[in-house]
Amino acid sequence: MKSSVTSLGLVSCGLLVAGIIPGPPLLAAESVDAGSINAYAIDNMFLFIAAVLVLFMQAGFAMVEAGLNSAKNTVNILFKNMMDLSVGALLFFIIGYGLMYPGDAFTGGWFGFGGFGIGSEAPEAVGGNLHPAVDFLFQVAFAATAATIVSGAVAGRMKFEAYLIYSAVITAIIYPISGFWKWGGGWLNELGFYDFAGSLVVHALGGFAGLAAAIVLGPRIGRFNPDGSPNALPGHNLAMSTLGVFILLIGWFGFNPGSQLAIAGADNTNIVMIIATNTLLAAAAGAVFAMLAAWTVFKKPDLTMAMNGVLGGLVGITANCDSVTYNEAIIIGAVAGILIVAGVKLLDMLKIDDPVGAWPVHGLNGIWGGIATGIFGGHPIVAQIIGSIAIPLWGFATMLVLFLILKAAGILRVSRDEEMKGLDISEHEEEAYHGFQIFSNQ
Amino acid sequence: MKSSVTSLGLVSCGLLVAGIIPGPPLLAAESVDAGSINAYAIDNMFLFIAAVLVLFMQAGFAMVEAGLNSAKNTVNILFKNMMDLSVGALLFFIIGYGLMYPGDAFTGGWFGFGGFGIGSEAPEAVGGNLHPAVDFLFQVAFAATAATIVSGAVAGRMKFEAYLIYSAVITAIIYPISGFWKWGGGWLNELGFYDFAGSLVVHALGGFAGLAAAIVLGPRIGRFNPDGSPNALPGHNLAMSTLGVFILLIGWFGFNPGSQLAIAGADNTNIVMIIATNTLLAAAAGAVFAMLAAWTVFKKPDLTMAMNGVLGGLVGITANCDSVTYNEAIIIGAVAGILIVAGVKLLDMLKIDDPVGAWPVHGLNGIWGGIATGIFGGHPIVAQIIGSIAIPLWGFATMLVLFLILKAAGILRVSRDEEMKGLDISEHEEEAYHGFQIFSNQ
Amino acid sequence: MKSSVTSLGLVSCGLLVAGIIPGPPLLAAESVDAGSINAYAIDNMFLFIAAVLVLFMQAGFAMVEAGLNSAKNTVNILFKNMMDLSVGALLFFIIGYGLMYPGDAFTGGWFGFGGFGIGSEAPEAVGGNLHPAVDFLFQVAFAATAATIVSGAVAGRMKFEAYLIYSAVITAIIYPISGFWKWGGGWLNELGFYDFAGSLVVHALGGFAGLAAAIVLGPRIGRFNPDGSPNALPGHNLAMSTLGVFILLIGWFGFNPGSQLAIAGADNTNIVMIIATNTLLAAAAGAVFAMLAAWTVFKKPDLTMAMNGVLGGLVGITANCDSVTYNEAIIIGAVAGILIVAGVKLLDMLKIDDPVGAWPVHGLNGIWGGIATGIFGGHPIVAQIIGSIAIPLWGFATMLVLFLILKAAGILRVSRDEEMKGLDISEHEEEAYHGFQIFSNQ
Repeated sequence: MKSSVTSLGLVSCGLLVAGIIPGPPLLAAESVDAGSINAYAIDNMFLFIAAVLVLFMQAGFAMVEAGLNSAKNTVNILFKNMMDLSVGALLFFIIGYGLMYPGDAFTGGWFGFGGFGIGSEAPEAVGGNLHPAVDFLFQVAFAATAATIVSGAVAGRMKFEAYLIYSAVITAIIYPISGFWKWGGGWLNELGFYDFAGSLVVHALGGFAGLAAAIVLGPRIGRFNPDGSPNALPGHNLAMSTLGVFILLIGWFGFNPGSQLAIAGADNTNIVMIIATNTLLAAAAGAVFAMLAAWTVFKKPDLTMAMNGVLGGLVGITANCDSVTYNEAIIIGAVAGILIVAGVKLLDMLKIDDPVGAWPVHGLNGIWGGIATGIFGGHPIVAQIIGSIAIPLWGFATMLVLFLILKAAGILRVSRDEEMKGLDISEHEEEAYHGFQIFSNQ
Repeated sequence: MKSSVTSLGLVSCGLLVAGIIPGPPLLAAESVDAGSINAYAIDNMFLFIAAVLVLFMQAGFAMVEAGLNSAKNTVNILFKNMMDLSVGALLFFIIGYGLMYPGDAFTGGWFGFGGFGIGSEAPEAVGGNLHPAVDFLFQVAFAATAATIVSGAVAGRMKFEAYLIYSAVITAIIYPISGFWKWGGGWLNELGFYDFAGSLVVHALGGFAGLAAAIVLGPRIGRFNPDGSPNALPGHNLAMSTLGVFILLIGWFGFNPGSQLAIAGADNTNIVMIIATNTLLAAAAGAVFAMLAAWTVFKKPDLTMAMNGVLGGLVGITANCDSVTYNEAIIIGAVAGILIVAGVKLLDMLKIDDPVGAWPVHGLNGIWGGIATGIFGGHPIVAQIIGSIAIPLWGFATMLVLFLILKAAGILRVSRDEEMKGLDISEHEEEAYHGFQIFSNQ
Repeated sequence: MKSSVTSLGLVSCGLLVAGIIPGPPLLAAESVDAGSINAYAIDNMFLFIAAVLVLFMQAGFAMVEAGLNSAKNTVNILFKNMMDLSVGALLFFIIGYGLMYPGDAFTGGWFGFGGFGIGSEAPEAVGGNLHPAVDFLFQVAFAATAATIVSGAVAGRMKFEAYLIYSAVITAIIYPISGFWKWGGGWLNELGFYDFAGSLVVHALGGFAGLAAAIVLGPRIGRFNPDGSPNALPGHNLAMSTLGVFILLIGWFGFNPGSQLAIAGADNTNIVMIIATNTLLAAAAGAVFAMLAAWTVFKKPDLTMAMNGVLGGLVGITANCDSVTYNEAIIIGAVAGILIVAGVKLLDMLKIDDPVGAWPVHGLNGIWGGIATGIFGGHPIVAQIIGSIAIPLWGFATMLVLFLILKAAGILRVSRDEEMKGLDISEHEEEAYHGFQIFSNQ
């Protein structure tokens, strides 16, 4: 996602006419130009639709995460997902957007601030530019994506209030600052680091924030035996989770193609279409290779691994979907699928409880996406490595501090009793599935 | 949603050239003009996509309503939702569209009829106009939205046949007539009443029709104690309801932005983007402030209140999303969120059983949207008040009569036994969740 | 869905100017033309959005099919749906696309091959053409639709591995070959057979492949009594299925309108809008008339019949949505709805177990769509009859052979014990609804 774009649409019908017909100056500076006016409508409509698709991903995350956890924590997870979007949208509007895209108020490579809120004024020249409102809409959907990744990793044990605080901090401050480093024109951008649609900026940031949370919180009760061996705590609704994966796949067609920020002009049109196809191919390869890897390791075809394979493939292609060939997209997705299984095994070995695999999907494959951008995408590998360390480290370190503070303040984790009873009852006095008979130990 | 639009796209490349190059008339009347041809494609595609998003709201309503009710009434609610769209689409095609948009056949401020069905012919001039088919598609999706609001308020006790009759009447006659008053060019429009996308025309009409139905039907068995105190009858699937809220949020990006009816031309492009951002901000504020209000009143963060806060914020911004600033959108959403909690309490006090909160969301906040259009949007407050009384009153009074007739005919409400058994078995001999063990008193 | 298109967008602003202003040749061959550049963006964006909507149908199929079957087979059905898309996307990319659209490598009316993979290069002239990537994206979504239809018909008894093999064969070879006959320019196209968006090419192929599978597999245990009378084996989650139907309805607005392959140019714009409205009207009529037919036959309004009525209406209108009037669309949908009930009864009489009604929806109504294209659409009826026999026969015969081979190899159907236990546990060692109490005989 570039921070600005020069569209071929600028080469408008009127300018063309003006340039090729000898005679008096035909067009005053303010003259209306149908070609660029249409290009303006096309680009803004395109980004509007992309933003809506990315916002739809909120539903996907909610479904995936709730379904992969116990029935007794469903309301809590869904509520967290709804509120990280809501709190996030307001705070990203007020503070975050100005931090991430300081524009003329740019104050240095590490930090800037362009003021509160967003402008209401359209750009003076319409050709190939975006209205600030749709730019904000697209960016806030990305910020909400980064935030909501964490809700899966902390499921079943983090207090609702703590999650609200976390949501506010990440969307108002943490995501915008590292986002500025790359997309706002900061030091990572200066360095030549490339991350087209946010394998690092969005996904790895969220994935490593989730890892920090999972470490500070500790595992759910019963997740690991005294001898360190893991117990599966199966999800309560894999149909809901599968639906969520399909919704995320659909939403990703806003996430990646939309990050071109323009579709008018033949170069933009062409690359958007290539991006879309690369996105699908990587997702498909991720599913197939996660299934095969899990089949090899666990001796059975495992749906949840294939689901995370789809998502891992999507995360892996996100940084480089505009820079690689179709065949390379398949390779990137295939490796991502295998990394899902490896990442899940690694977390088990480290006794870290990440109930939905947020870190393998978004953290590990976020880094893979960044590195793959160097290997396949033709971008300088050193800059890719630096960016693929810096952003995860920023997300992990800042969130580790935040969660440690919340822990010290005694507001991070629910009590043992509350956890056993489930967060739906203990935090919200609401059941997700009233009337259904559900085993009491779930 | 204006009934016609003059698009900047009319100022097309060719006309521009014709206007600024001295010489013989360059363009005959029938000449093809790429600029306006593209604008025509853009506007029609935009409204087509918006219509699809609004149609998707049918899924959102079905999920929200079914999830907030007992498992035993799920098939019935879903079936009603599917049929109000299906019956409604056919009858709005045959009768309703001609009533709502009589066009040249306009016969007065209160009532008109433009004939059965819709035209197949495209407008002669393509620039900035809409094909009748996509105009119908967008309008029928709105009619279906108004109709389906009621299915939540009548859940658990209204006979399936009665609901089919209601669906036919509202989409064929009641909604089109009051819709004509504003969007068809009738007396409310003449008066200066403003309702951009239908806080009143769609939502308050549906919300007050639902209120009439809830009053005539009476509460579900067990909803109120003999001393008048209310019992919660919790929903059976809050995950489904949450998904429905997300789907409705997504669909609203068709509902509000689409109501500009054009995106080509810089003014249209700009306002569509502002509308979209205002829509998100109001929804977010609605969620946050409904959560805070419920937390204050009920001493716990309540998911269903936050869900309805999202929807209330969306309804509140619908009338004025093109007329207010971002900050005002947040205020409108925040008030809407608080009104959700107030409206639910009010219905409890009045012993009216509205199982999903259809009236607080669509009725009360529909009126709030109309009034806010006067307070913040710069539209004459008196006209806003008149419209905000007239349309709800029309919906309430006509539907009160209809439901009283159905009651007198003995076909409105199921028997006590049928209600206890659940409408799925008693009306459809189908279970929604075959095989699941569900407590028999649910 | 035509295989290429000449868009009015070709008549671009620049060419227009060139044609009407006397003087020296104004535009060199390579000159940039804003009108056609915008038309290129519009058409590609349109098809991109349509492709995303069609891909969303995968979620719809998964929800419909899983919900209409037992809880114990949910993971298996969902997994099959996820993998037919994933395996299918990779194999259609590698082989299928080259078989279906051989282009210059065209080698005859029955078979052709254009090479592996797809091209990366955009068309030289941008006006009205599509980038190969988006053409592939749209086509692969169609291939995946054809493939996934079968997963419903084989639910509850086909081995996962057998389904993977089937998915590979149909998307790599079977669908592309008959697709080539029509959309690739093969013998059916030469004959004058018309199938706008695939009532036959996609739906009947999948529906008859499913019929072949259902016959070779035999019915699920307990589906028919020794005396031949059928037992209903009710679905476990009709809410999920209803959501799926709504998603499919939404997705169909990509399927049918997108098959015009262009929206720029007034003729394209107009027909796309008509197609969209015809699609909705047929779906609505399908729902209403399936409900009425089932009410007549079964003496109760049946949700699953109405659901399949929506889908049947959609399949019926798919071949002819660009060729019929609104009123004819309603008639086509109404007949389709009645055919749903007739088809279900017919399968019961024949003792064929098709758990979700895949054949009545896609097979029978696919043929109805093809015939209706002759009756109402003005296309030669003989060619329609030939195509409506040839494609179903191709799908049925080839898949019959495949499934017989898999049966002979002993890898087609799970054992009796595995079937009773459910495929989720026996094939995947995963429960879909962990924690929920579900009757053990389900």
